[in-house]
Amino acid sequence: MYALLPSLRVVEASSFVASPTAGLYLAQLGAEVIRFDQIGGGPDFKRWPLSPSGSSLYWEGLNKGKKSIAIDLGRPEGRELAQRLATAPGANAGLLLTNYPVNSFLAHDRLVALRPDLVTVRVMGLADGGNALDYTVNCAVGFPQITGPASLGNEPVNHVLPAWDLLTGAYAAFALLAAERSRRESGKGREVRVPLMDMATATISNLGMIGEVLSTGADRTRYGNQLYGAFGRDFVTADGKRLVIMAITQRQWAGLIESLGLREAVAHVEADRGVNFSKDEGLRFEHRDTLVPLVAQAVAQRNSDELFPDFDARGVCWGPYKGMYEAATDPALVARNPIFSSIEHVSGLTYPTAGAPVTIPEESRGSPIRAPRLGEHTDEVLLELLGLASGEVGSLHDAGVVAGPE
Amino acid sequence: MYALLPSLRVVEASSFVASPTAGLYLAQLGAEVIRFDQIGGGPDFKRWPLSPSGSSLYWEGLNKGKKSIAIDLGRPEGRELAQRLATAPGANAGLLLTNYPVNSFLAHDRLVALRPDLVTVRVMGLADGGNALDYTVNCAVGFPQITGPASLGNEPVNHVLPAWDLLTGAYAAFALLAAERSRRESGKGREVRVPLMDMATATISNLGMIGEVLSTGADRTRYGNQLYGAFGRDFVTADGKRLVIMAITQRQWAGLIESLGLREAVAHVEADRGVNFSKDEGLRFEHRDTLVPLVAQAVAQRNSDELFPDFDARGVCWGPYKGMYEAATDPALVARNPIFSSIEHVSGLTYPTAGAPVTIPEESRGSPIRAPRLGEHTDEVLLELLGLASGEVGSLHDAGVVAGPE
Repeated sequence: MYALLPSLRVVEASSFVASPTAGLYLAQLGAEVIRFDQIGGGPDFKRWPLSPSGSSLYWEGLNKGKKSIAIDLGRPEGRELAQRLATAPGANAGLLLTNYPVNSFLAHDRLVALRPDLVTVRVMGLADGGNALDYTVNCAVGFPQITGPASLGNEPVNHVLPAWDLLTGAYAAFALLAAERSRRESGKGREVRVPLMDMATATISNLGMIGEVLSTGADRTRYGNQLYGAFGRDFVTADGKRLVIMAITQRQWAGLIESLGLREAVAHVEADRGVNFSKDEGLRFEHRDTLVPLVAQAVAQRNSDELFPDFDARGVCWGPYKGMYEAATDPALVARNPIFSSIEHVSGLTYPTAGAPVTIPEESRGSPIRAPRLGEHTDEVLLELLGLASGEVGSLHDAGVVAGPE
Repeated sequence: MYALLPSLRVVEASSFVASPTAGLYLAQLGAEVIRFDQIGGGPDFKRWPLSPSGSSLYWEGLNKGKKSIAIDLGRPEGRELAQRLATAPGANAGLLLTNYPVNSFLAHDRLVALRPDLVTVRVMGLADGGNALDYTVNCAVGFPQITGPASLGNEPVNHVLPAWDLLTGAYAAFALLAAERSRRESGKGREVRVPLMDMATATISNLGMIGEVLSTGADRTRYGNQLYGAFGRDFVTADGKRLVIMAITQRQWAGLIESLGLREAVAHVEADRGVNFSKDEGLRFEHRDTLVPLVAQAVAQRNSDELFPDFDARGVCWGPYKGMYEAATDPALVARNPIFSSIEHVSGLTYPTAGAPVTIPEESRGSPIRAPRLGEHTDEVLLELLGLASGEVGSLHDAGVVAGPE
């Protein structure tokens, strides 16, 4: 945790990946993020992966460093309490991050009656309020059909990484700071809606892919592990190590050709076909029929312990394929990586845990903070933030409107 | 474009996806983003996809709404000019977004001599300055081995969506606003380094996957299109339409079972196995051996024109698989989507183009602005921002230190 946003207070009412990720990013840069959930847990409280004891590793990963208050949102008193929380006073507060529906009790229009300068960032599926998840969004914009080897025919390949959720979450954190900055200049709050589907369609626009398919009139071919538009794909060494090699810049290409002793062979291809691969990465893609076998053959003759250091010395852009267990136990990636600390979680497990994924030279990096127990901060939030008397807090507990940790 | 950040001025020195995306998101919320590039174009200026006339649809997608100044960065005078640009005065300026190396002429330490409160956000590969790209990062953390059908054995599946680049770009935009906010409170600038590899390792931590593989001691199985931990995968209707169905919440599951007339069959399985699928999405995953065939058979008996509206009416979470051309020509996704406008680009092509992927109710949404010609704003930036006299600008052109549009 770096203390860039220590004065900021964000109230989060969310579930699943996108909206909780936005809250996580804010908390990891020092904001106070108060997440409220239904007593007993919302729809993501038991989501897989689970620990051996059955608690959600997913929930404890996405809610690190937040405060938790548990409220019975099924009752009017509970919903009113949540509304007061979202709209509590403070120049650096009045910031709601949510994926609740537009017309729920967290509708922006209702909340501005309590705090006119409220900033609401609302993660949605479709902009019209319709259902959409990461997985349906990915299918809607065409990636599954161009992912994976051509041998799959028209069988789609769903991604495992919830990329659209993650992207939407990071964007929502950005949008929240943008709206808060605007409010500091103008005094005006607003609701910013961030629909997953619009993140996806905007992204294919940003990457030039809408222009591409509209000008070609067809989908891109399925190229498997082959990078589109430059040189790159997977190869296997003599000792059976699989790696990815990318040569996008001139320097990466030159280093690769030198390292593999292919200067002459490539020059021969260039002369033969009347092209120059060093200055145009697109030509390396167009002529992959000859370049890929050359590289594959050269890599297959080398052992990884000799080839990989040579690649590094020459600035070749490459990387080994690792299994996730291998990655999680790789000292450079995790145990010795300063963004990680091994901390004990609510599941009872102690494991290496990431803080903010950034490095700020010469500033101290606090340790990551575990996710709360559900309701761990219920009393603290009611007493300190809403300023309730302890008798009032007791009555809310007695009435079952709020709950502490189990 | 929404005018949330109209006073902000960001100087961008970048290439490829991550860093330009951050600049794009800032520009689309109203910031003035000035990108400088080598005269003739940096390493991403000709990147695929290309228009029929050979200009980069990718470049014109990722640089929409920015200003462009072309400088000969191979010469000391050019580099000095770039440094002056990054550190030019203004309370809402002094914000540098770059993927240049730590020790380049854009080293933060050098630039603070010109502007002590500079904020630099630097997108990197590895935190130690080593090479890494989206594709190598993805391989390093284990996703290719768990993506795609089990029939592929241990053959990895690279993703086509540059998910780590996009996530890092959105995070970089967030980090820039966080650092700028901190500077407004404290007067202190800083460099925030955002390495792609740390975004990836932090993400598998955030999603609970590091805890998962360390507690199981093994990689997750390759589940193909099957969602892990709940009910979800692809199915095909009687008329051959492929769709994805997800049932994560209780409501989604109930709607699905009702729509497919499976209430009795599912109750039978529940009685048989002593489980209750409605309250525990994990059980729907554990018992997929029986649930998937039930759903597959029921879907295969229905036609899409009758099934899909029924799904919608019952709140089932589903979506059709679309090719990207089909997506780009889908009126709801693009042509009628208010985030899109059809505009003419530098390539000479006119096509639907996304602005900011957000909706702010009751505020006017400006039209997206095309990417600049390389050097289109060279004179404007030199005259207005750096305050050079027109004679000085002329001399810089004559000396080949800067260039206007070709």
